[in-house]
Amino acid sequence: PPPGKPRPLSLPRGDTFQLANGLTVIHHRKPDLPLVSMELALRSGNEANPPGKPGLTSFTADMLDEGTASRSSLQIADEIARLGATLATGATADASTVQLFSLKKNFAKAADIFADVVLNPNFPPEEVERKRASRLGELVQSRENPSVVAAHALLAALYGPSHPYGYPTLGSEAAVNSTSRQDLAAFWQRHYAPNNAALVVSGDISRGEAKALAESLFGKWQRKTIAVAESAPPATTAARLVIVDKPGAPQTALRLGAVGPDRKTPDYAALEVMNAALGGLFTSRINVKLREEKGYTYGVRSAFQYRRAPGPFEIRTSVRTDVTGPAVEEIFNEIRGVKEKPITGAELKKARDSQLLSLPGAFETTAGIASQLADTFVYELGADYYSKLPAILRSVDGKAVAQAGNRYLAKENLIVVGVGDRAKIEAQLSKLKLAPIEYRDAAGKITNQ
Amino acid sequence: PPPGKPRPLSLPRGDTFQLANGLTVIHHRKPDLPLVSMELALRSGNEANPPGKPGLTSFTADMLDEGTASRSSLQIADEIARLGATLATGATADASTVQLFSLKKNFAKAADIFADVVLNPNFPPEEVERKRASRLGELVQSRENPSVVAAHALLAALYGPSHPYGYPTLGSEAAVNSTSRQDLAAFWQRHYAPNNAALVVSGDISRGEAKALAESLFGKWQRKTIAVAESAPPATTAARLVIVDKPGAPQTALRLGAVGPDRKTPDYAALEVMNAALGGLFTSRINVKLREEKGYTYGVRSAFQYRRAPGPFEIRTSVRTDVTGPAVEEIFNEIRGVKEKPITGAELKKARDSQLLSLPGAFETTAGIASQLADTFVYELGADYYSKLPAILRSVDGKAVAQAGNRYLAKENLIVVGVGDRAKIEAQLSKLKLAPIEYRDAAGKITNQ
Repeated sequence: PPPGKPRPLSLPRGDTFQLANGLTVIHHRKPDLPLVSMELALRSGNEANPPGKPGLTSFTADMLDEGTASRSSLQIADEIARLGATLATGATADASTVQLFSLKKNFAKAADIFADVVLNPNFPPEEVERKRASRLGELVQSRENPSVVAAHALLAALYGPSHPYGYPTLGSEAAVNSTSRQDLAAFWQRHYAPNNAALVVSGDISRGEAKALAESLFGKWQRKTIAVAESAPPATTAARLVIVDKPGAPQTALRLGAVGPDRKTPDYAALEVMNAALGGLFTSRINVKLREEKGYTYGVRSAFQYRRAPGPFEIRTSVRTDVTGPAVEEIFNEIRGVKEKPITGAELKKARDSQLLSLPGAFETTAGIASQLADTFVYELGADYYSKLPAILRSVDGKAVAQAGNRYLAKENLIVVGVGDRAKIEAQLSKLKLAPIEYRDAAGKITNQ
Repeated sequence: PPPGKPRPLSLPRGDTFQLANGLTVIHHRKPDLPLVSMELALRSGNEANPPGKPGLTSFTADMLDEGTASRSSLQIADEIARLGATLATGATADASTVQLFSLKKNFAKAADIFADVVLNPNFPPEEVERKRASRLGELVQSRENPSVVAAHALLAALYGPSHPYGYPTLGSEAAVNSTSRQDLAAFWQRHYAPNNAALVVSGDISRGEAKALAESLFGKWQRKTIAVAESAPPATTAARLVIVDKPGAPQTALRLGAVGPDRKTPDYAALEVMNAALGGLFTSRINVKLREEKGYTYGVRSAFQYRRAPGPFEIRTSVRTDVTGPAVEEIFNEIRGVKEKPITGAELKKARDSQLLSLPGAFETTAGIASQLADTFVYELGADYYSKLPAILRSVDGKAVAQAGNRYLAKENLIVVGVGDRAKIEAQLSKLKLAPIEYRDAAGKITNQ
């Protein structure tokens, strides 16, 4: 027996208002459980890294809860633990964020600490050194993971060394080593301002409570003039093939990528549907071909990463060393196939449904809601974005998918990165005539050969 | 201003009933969002692996959604994707599970597929081979991660080669290679039975709907006699120090461990509080000492893994190669310290509160609720377990913590595993007089020297 009548799908809509100092506040009530999530999102992400300082945004965000004017790193962690709350700080491509999750009964106390780390971080020198060592350690470890190495090499090839997107969030060893306490404090001073931020509050809390809390915590925060980040344009390498040698590797970590559109592109919905059909789902064309038909891999996925500036499109997989060349060729065939074998009605329906029906899951928790609503601020999508998104996705048709594919996908545009045993994969890949070829090391730097 | 009056903490309680064939059904209504999660949990986990076949339980669970009498692997994935649902199968130490998450409106259709993979898997030979290759690949990759290597070596040292807990969930290369389609089908035949399982349904669905659905999907499932898994007793190695050589490693992955109690131990709450104070929290004694005071590591954590049979207690960290010996010594000091420096009132309160206040977060989503309620069946904890747990945790006092520490923690019982540059760490560790010393390879096997 089918379980009762379904209710229509509706996604949470935030109630947005501003404080006098320009801080955007987005409130959403979810009273079913006594929990509250709060997120502060600043419109300064990795993109805001100045030249020569990749990783600065993330390093700064990392330091927020490592000491304030009145609390040490340990005191912050200690108070948060006593409250049973969680507090996290971090940076993405387009935002710096501070996130809090707490029982309602302890929320006011936890929010005080949240505000303290946003407003009063003091970057204690010994904590800076500890964090520096930790970040260097993470970078070293990331060099041992072929899939991560391939990701970094692709970013480096797509955006070049002068663009902030050319580096992973952690930055580079050189930048981590050269970042001073003053650099961190200056970044915080420049970018952490109410008129550059949204405070999102979701959970068992009324609009009045959320507004009073925002005023009391952040009402006195001073507005600043935010300098627009000026970054060099992407300097995509000419190379079509990038090889990182990993002698003896049983598999090749592969990435194929190109610079795609930004988050506000009008093609967003069509691209998401197109990508679901091409490589976004387990049953997408590329995965069926490489995994099911050919048996080259345990899985392959494609995705657009939409950012404030044009972000990368990537296809990622790991394949057996002996089929590295054939696997790339099959991926090329499927890319061409999007144009030559238009998406069928069944493919379209599946791809569209998969996008539509997975939407509600992202809004199940207070933290999920806060994060989704924060995105509407970070990407200037408008308060009614999620109300309109289902209808926009539903309206994507085969023609829109074909246009999106033609606009953003071309075999010729794709840079191919292979991290594997060069002695075994280079000949296979050379047959594909992807010259020029570039050799990079595990840190993504171009080597002589 | 503090946000309104908090409501008292109450954790979801399932409504439990049985079908005529012995299937336990646990229902919990959560009507705030049109979502439903369903989980089938069988009381057969890794512990049920027969001698010589580590990984069989997990291999079997992996195969469920790779083909049934009426659906191919691809059709299953395809139908689930069209419904916007997610379906996952897997095995833990103590259970095999099938999990479904869906919008309410598609739940009945998705549940049909869920039942199909539970009742009618047919282990297609080509899918078995694909899964075998995938599992071998994962095992090979896990050898490259020093922390995973240390975890496997510790299990091997604690439980020995004849006990199913002596291996990771994936098993061993030899077992994966020798597992036949017949082995998989026979395991499924032996363990997948209604009287060995609970079906947990949580979300926007009434008791009547859940009951009707359970009857319609699983009412005709035949009861079986379940053979109790007979495994050899743990054969803990005599070695106090286990070294896995990784020449040139900049860090040493460390694990210290012992066999602890099982999930039903009356010491559970006291142990969780004790562990939070010792090494379970960021501000616990071990992390403060090694990370904050000594700067040896970026983090260290301890945890009991409670299982149906006695599970491991583990302390895990990675430290700089040059401080490997001193780090182990400091951990020993803190272990001894639990006895010599009894937990203070402030430590007790923090440790207790951290356990209590983090409970509600695990019940925020329908999937979380289903998983927690499934545990009450798997570990025979009783339907009222979560109603009573907060009070039990609140009643833990300093005396109970001290007793728990005395009972389960002794420096002398701990096996120390170091995965790192033997040439640099062996001398440091030898000073600690942890003999006998054992050398193992990256697969956890004892080597000559």
